[in-house]
Amino acid sequence: MTSPFPFLAIILEVAIIALFGLFVGDEQDQNNYQQPNSTKSTAVDGFLELYPLFQDVHVMIFVGFGFLMTFLKKYGFSSVGINLLIAALGLQWGTLVQGFLHSRGEKIHVGIKNMINADFSTATVLISFGAVLGKISPCQMLIMTIIEIAVFAANEHLVTEVFMASDIGASMTIHAFGAYFGLAVAGVLYRPGLRRGHDNNESMYHSDLFAMIGTLFLWIFWPSFNSALAEAGDKQHWAIVNTYFSLAACVLTAYAFSSLVGHRGKLDMVHIQNATLAGGVAVGTCADMAIHPYISMIIGSIAGMVSVLGFKFVTPLFATKLRIHDTCGVHSLHGLPGVIGGLAGIGAVALEVSNSSLQHQTGC
Amino acid sequence: MTSPFPFLAIILEVAIIALFGLFVGDEQDQNNYQQPNSTKSTAVDGFLELYPLFQDVHVMIFVGFGFLMTFLKKYGFSSVGINLLIAALGLQWGTLVQGFLHSRGEKIHVGIKNMINADFSTATVLISFGAVLGKISPCQMLIMTIIEIAVFAANEHLVTEVFMASDIGASMTIHAFGAYFGLAVAGVLYRPGLRRGHDNNESMYHSDLFAMIGTLFLWIFWPSFNSALAEAGDKQHWAIVNTYFSLAACVLTAYAFSSLVGHRGKLDMVHIQNATLAGGVAVGTCADMAIHPYISMIIGSIAGMVSVLGFKFVTPLFATKLRIHDTCGVHSLHGLPGVIGGLAGIGAVALEVSNSSLQHQTGC
Amino acid sequence: MTSPFPFLAIILEVAIIALFGLFVGDEQDQNNYQQPNSTKSTAVDGFLELYPLFQDVHVMIFVGFGFLMTFLKKYGFSSVGINLLIAALGLQWGTLVQGFLHSRGEKIHVGIKNMINADFSTATVLISFGAVLGKISPCQMLIMTIIEIAVFAANEHLVTEVFMASDIGASMTIHAFGAYFGLAVAGVLYRPGLRRGHDNNESMYHSDLFAMIGTLFLWIFWPSFNSALAEAGDKQHWAIVNTYFSLAACVLTAYAFSSLVGHRGKLDMVHIQNATLAGGVAVGTCADMAIHPYISMIIGSIAGMVSVLGFKFVTPLFATKLRIHDTCGVHSLHGLPGVIGGLAGIGAVALEVSNSSLQHQTGC
Repeated sequence: MTSPFPFLAIILEVAIIALFGLFVGDEQDQNNYQQPNSTKSTAVDGFLELYPLFQDVHVMIFVGFGFLMTFLKKYGFSSVGINLLIAALGLQWGTLVQGFLHSRGEKIHVGIKNMINADFSTATVLISFGAVLGKISPCQMLIMTIIEIAVFAANEHLVTEVFMASDIGASMTIHAFGAYFGLAVAGVLYRPGLRRGHDNNESMYHSDLFAMIGTLFLWIFWPSFNSALAEAGDKQHWAIVNTYFSLAACVLTAYAFSSLVGHRGKLDMVHIQNATLAGGVAVGTCADMAIHPYISMIIGSIAGMVSVLGFKFVTPLFATKLRIHDTCGVHSLHGLPGVIGGLAGIGAVALEVSNSSLQHQTGC
Repeated sequence: MTSPFPFLAIILEVAIIALFGLFVGDEQDQNNYQQPNSTKSTAVDGFLELYPLFQDVHVMIFVGFGFLMTFLKKYGFSSVGINLLIAALGLQWGTLVQGFLHSRGEKIHVGIKNMINADFSTATVLISFGAVLGKISPCQMLIMTIIEIAVFAANEHLVTEVFMASDIGASMTIHAFGAYFGLAVAGVLYRPGLRRGHDNNESMYHSDLFAMIGTLFLWIFWPSFNSALAEAGDKQHWAIVNTYFSLAACVLTAYAFSSLVGHRGKLDMVHIQNATLAGGVAVGTCADMAIHPYISMIIGSIAGMVSVLGFKFVTPLFATKLRIHDTCGVHSLHGLPGVIGGLAGIGAVALEVSNSSLQHQTGC
Repeated sequence: MTSPFPFLAIILEVAIIALFGLFVGDEQDQNNYQQPNSTKSTAVDGFLELYPLFQDVHVMIFVGFGFLMTFLKKYGFSSVGINLLIAALGLQWGTLVQGFLHSRGEKIHVGIKNMINADFSTATVLISFGAVLGKISPCQMLIMTIIEIAVFAANEHLVTEVFMASDIGASMTIHAFGAYFGLAVAGVLYRPGLRRGHDNNESMYHSDLFAMIGTLFLWIFWPSFNSALAEAGDKQHWAIVNTYFSLAACVLTAYAFSSLVGHRGKLDMVHIQNATLAGGVAVGTCADMAIHPYISMIIGSIAGMVSVLGFKFVTPLFATKLRIHDTCGVHSLHGLPGVIGGLAGIGAVALEVSNSSLQHQTGC
């Protein structure tokens, strides 16, 4: 009769508090630990220096993802409300799981990079949430959050620490991973009624405007997302510049292709809300590499085009052929552009290697 | 026949300009004054270093408080509009009043900390505004702003300078003070008709979504609010981390208790909009102390729970028994969590004292 | 039959990518280039130090301008959507055009100041867009963006490099220029039917609330707009403080005069959304000069008053007498306050010159 939701939420919070008490270190030791080789004042400066980038990412997680999903006419409040719940749970659990993997048996210490990483963990779950929106209860979402963040952390550890692959903006580890995880869950939850669409799976004028709040804050702060964990200095600078130009180029091709495939050249609100962001996803992997800005713009242009075509042709196919109903179209926003990002990263690394071997040969 | 509002607003602005002309110093002298012991370049760096935190607080004051009160279906525009008016007056008047108290007869100099303090002064009035929303004219609000900021500044001076009490996030001096000040005014303005409720005292679907814009920006930037005036370095770092975890924990208990006390386990939008912020209020006083993160999470969890129970059981009692009609429920969002914050602060200080005396005895 | 829009958008993007490939330098060389006399670490610090101010400006361009124009009941989505398209094109093209003018034949290097300048270029077009909103197709907007940014860059180069005039917040070069450029285009596009007004040229309750999102983010971040390119140190500090107080004072006079000229003392939503920002425009030119804060407040007060009177009396005159239909009233928000800013700048320079000659004489 009664929902298990409140009990599960309380048990999870009590468990997390207990785990924090056991495994997270005292604050007094933290700064010394974080940057053992630097003077104390430098360590502290580092915290405040990255804090604005962290806050940009924080706005993306809570306002960006939250409002992006308010486009449904009867599900806006639930979208933004459950987004807040998942993200609040996710960042606590993400701090713990990533701490376990990186602390090598010592106490976990919470610095600004851990907070950024915790926000990144929740991004994965929020992307998956877009695929299952309207088909899943808050209770199920809590469980999915706990499982997905653990899998994400293990996968990310494998990719970056064991395979030593570079994925600064996490095109693959966050975006593609989150999208395909969500699609798998959506496949499990598929009911035949979803094939014909559903009355509530529609937007209305004002809900589309609310969704634009999400789109714009994601678009504006994406350079911070792709650069927050980059190596300080040139690489961070490049990550910002490359993401900025990729996103700008992506907007133009997204609008152009939306009009091309639209009825009588009309722009589609879904494309404007979503495909304009594909440039940020796709440039993620190679954002901090020394690629020329025009390369970022080419990556962004392709991502905007592919994303629109994905929304137009691939997402409907998923519902009819694969029996996967993708509410927000995360496959076209995060899945396909994430794969483009992975391929672009491979290309950029190959190019960099050949360049630097060339420089080596010619004595530069 | 004609409203006295425009004349009062113009007189106040002219008076403030005159007072600025008389009591605020030239800008040329400012940097030298602010940090007499440091080189000029350091003083300037301090300004830009705190500027992002100031902007976070600024967003909370104007967008956060402004949109949080848009939940009323016919009063949204007035809420956000009068919020802007009060805050614009409040920050000018707050600069003056706090300047008088701290400048000891010298000219007032406007640095980044004065701007943060001025925003804090206005927060007090905006909290009180939540209790009297819909019952008070713009003209009355202007007068209340002038009076409340003067009383606030005197009270804050007493608490922090004379009693030497620590209240970095201002749980008591801003939140509890603002809430009880507003409730007192609401008590004076009580009319019997308010007991049965009022048609306009209701939300609608879209007004609830607008209110979430306010909730989310307050939630995201609260760590900046609690840390903006903290001592640079460790204490500021701790204030950010503690507030971050307190807020995250608070969301889970607020949702859990909202579902527990709700009809058939349903979540209440009012709780999601408001009680999720109680963790930021309650951790305010001890945010910059060296408490362990799990302590912050316990404080946040308790605040979320108490705030929901306050909205469900205490706010209605105020209207029926005490003849105080609290439009936005500021007692449950700022009053009760503010008192929890004060108690937590006493506990944290007691613990810190006993810890440091222990360290003293054992020679650490 | 088919719209030329998608083809134009794709051609423009391809052309811009080609120009970037030809004229923009490799990222490896950039930091060395930007600040040749400083150590590398300083150059990098400068990037991150200004990045929060850049992001504030970025929020103004995309969220601020975008949502400010959503007040029309049937044109909200188009406003915010086309705003994003124009700004994305504008910042790419602005980077190129300004690069051509400043690089003196060398490769263009993209640093944080170029990114801020690129955002400023787009601001000009977005201001003009406000005058022609609803009367112009996306295709025409693309062409207008290309032309206007080229003219803007040439004009700005002339004013700041050749005439050596100081206009840090760009009251004249951005605001007045953008407004009068837009009005000229609106004059060309005038159709007699516009004189009687149009059914769609109306707001509704929720569209006015959306517009307030734009207003508030513009208001909050305006100090960053006026200071982002100011000389680091005192001048940047002054630009922030002066803009902050000018805006605050402007709110009070805008509300007062809105009530004075309103029907039965009622506040007009259009004035609250727009005239409250006039203080930021008007203080722009002299924001970084050593003017006393009370002078900024006088400038802001006058701008708020003039802007309200402009909306009430001048904008309707433009439609009936001059056959210029100014959809958003950019003449009253950017045009008149921009001119006030220019006059204030002349006054401030005159004062500064007389002051410093005085100091010279007295040996200070």
